[in-house]
Amino acid sequence: MTTQRSTDQHRKPVTLLGLGPMGLSLAQTLLRRGHPLTLWNRSPEKADGLVAEGARRARTAAEAVAASPVTLVCLAGYATMYEVLEPAAAALEGRSLVNLCSGTPAEAHAAVTWSGERGARYLDGAVMVPPPMVGEPGAVFLYSGPREVFDEHLEPLTSLGDPRHLGEDPGLAVLYNTAMLDMMYTTLNGWLHATALVGSAGVPARQFAELALGWFMPAVVDYAALARQAPDLDAGTYPGTLNTLEMNLNALEHITRTSQEQGIDSAHPRLMKEIAGRAVAEGHGGRNYLAVYELFKKATPHP
Amino acid sequence: MTTQRSTDQHRKPVTLLGLGPMGLSLAQTLLRRGHPLTLWNRSPEKADGLVAEGARRARTAAEAVAASPVTLVCLAGYATMYEVLEPAAAALEGRSLVNLCSGTPAEAHAAVTWSGERGARYLDGAVMVPPPMVGEPGAVFLYSGPREVFDEHLEPLTSLGDPRHLGEDPGLAVLYNTAMLDMMYTTLNGWLHATALVGSAGVPARQFAELALGWFMPAVVDYAALARQAPDLDAGTYPGTLNTLEMNLNALEHITRTSQEQGIDSAHPRLMKEIAGRAVAEGHGGRNYLAVYELFKKATPHP
Repeated sequence: MTTQRSTDQHRKPVTLLGLGPMGLSLAQTLLRRGHPLTLWNRSPEKADGLVAEGARRARTAAEAVAASPVTLVCLAGYATMYEVLEPAAAALEGRSLVNLCSGTPAEAHAAVTWSGERGARYLDGAVMVPPPMVGEPGAVFLYSGPREVFDEHLEPLTSLGDPRHLGEDPGLAVLYNTAMLDMMYTTLNGWLHATALVGSAGVPARQFAELALGWFMPAVVDYAALARQAPDLDAGTYPGTLNTLEMNLNALEHITRTSQEQGIDSAHPRLMKEIAGRAVAEGHGGRNYLAVYELFKKATPHP
Repeated sequence: MTTQRSTDQHRKPVTLLGLGPMGLSLAQTLLRRGHPLTLWNRSPEKADGLVAEGARRARTAAEAVAASPVTLVCLAGYATMYEVLEPAAAALEGRSLVNLCSGTPAEAHAAVTWSGERGARYLDGAVMVPPPMVGEPGAVFLYSGPREVFDEHLEPLTSLGDPRHLGEDPGLAVLYNTAMLDMMYTTLNGWLHATALVGSAGVPARQFAELALGWFMPAVVDYAALARQAPDLDAGTYPGTLNTLEMNLNALEHITRTSQEQGIDSAHPRLMKEIAGRAVAEGHGGRNYLAVYELFKKATPHP
């Protein structure tokens, strides 16, 4: 952080609602970049430090919204957002809302309607980094909704981090966010479960990591190599020339049996075995493993 | 492949049982490297091409085993190995077996006893590459069992690929192999499920891959970064300073709900949610996500 906190008249004014850990980091970053900043938080004293550094504290959410062409929302969720903004409805007319709190695509769609009824334009966003990373190199923010709202407020959005507009569908930002976390947790589980499997024979995690993470995964499941197979998913072509789902099902049965024999969790591999088994039952047995994508695209049979 | 096929008297003789796709590739590689090679296969004609290139065909498994100090076994499984080797028991005395067929750690342990009763020493192995990669740069072979057997036959083992001795416990090679495949399938599922999630809103796999595999995963779940956290698993320390399992459980509930709302598979995230929920119930809620390792190390409650 620099000590230069004076606002720059060439920077566009921004309003921010919500000063939790993420909101505080957003506010500090916007101030540091010279944006005239108006703040509102349910507990007003949370803004004390930021006011000392040049931010303006609004007494009400309506006053805050009225102060800037764009209002960033960083509240606990959609219910809180509606509760806070309903009394500010008159001020919303002609202004833009950029909501960074997480929800579902359905909630993002509902917010578009709600905002439109109050004369405001709505952009949905997702912060892909923890609070200390906001404004730092490598910080990525996802946005979805009207492109012209994104373009109009690109300057303050760029101050926060690399802004990516994913499309006009307002649900896309939170959906991408959810999907990437899904992949993150699944990958972590794969590593932890595999480590538990060798750990059952007394192998330290550190020793397994040398071979599994230092060689096998980068060699066989390199992220860039997966990306090169993405067109196959779009085309629905899964040629079983090198390996087939039948063979993969055998391997997954083997992994499940070994997990049971070694006395560790077997629920994780068993689910994978069941999914591969269903894929074979649906006629994908001669295709390659990526054909399980066809099953993932459908709702779970017995939820 | 070079055309130089003449055996080299300085290279140690090797016997190979089994000429499936992997056995054929092992045999070609050993011949290419100049090892005097004796072959046996249930269908003898499978050896025709190799005999033309300088290999010797044995009429029985016993004759094959008697021809070399070390016999590589590449048969369909342990049952087949016992069936083939039982009539060769007399020839096994004083010789070494290196078994490359896959099984469970328990099967590897039983094979040590079986071999010992017949005066043979036993090394278990796992081939970590597909047949065309045998002998190529980057080919890795895992071995476990007596170190002196590994050292004694290091020359032919090195001809096949980079040989890694994992320890004296004969079950380690197949256990590492199983664990790495476990991690591979789980990671693939994570990618495919996440792609199905954004796909529910019409996002092509290729477009999602750009952000998810081109930026997010390498930035957040880089394999080298995971390896640096392995000592925490060994120490059982999971400091919840940046994120806690309670927060992760919220995220996993959100992923599960979104999967249901979007009409795609929800079994995959639901299992992750259940595991995280159990971890919180067992008192890990204030620790970080890696604490689910403690649950994976234990047998599934209701298998």
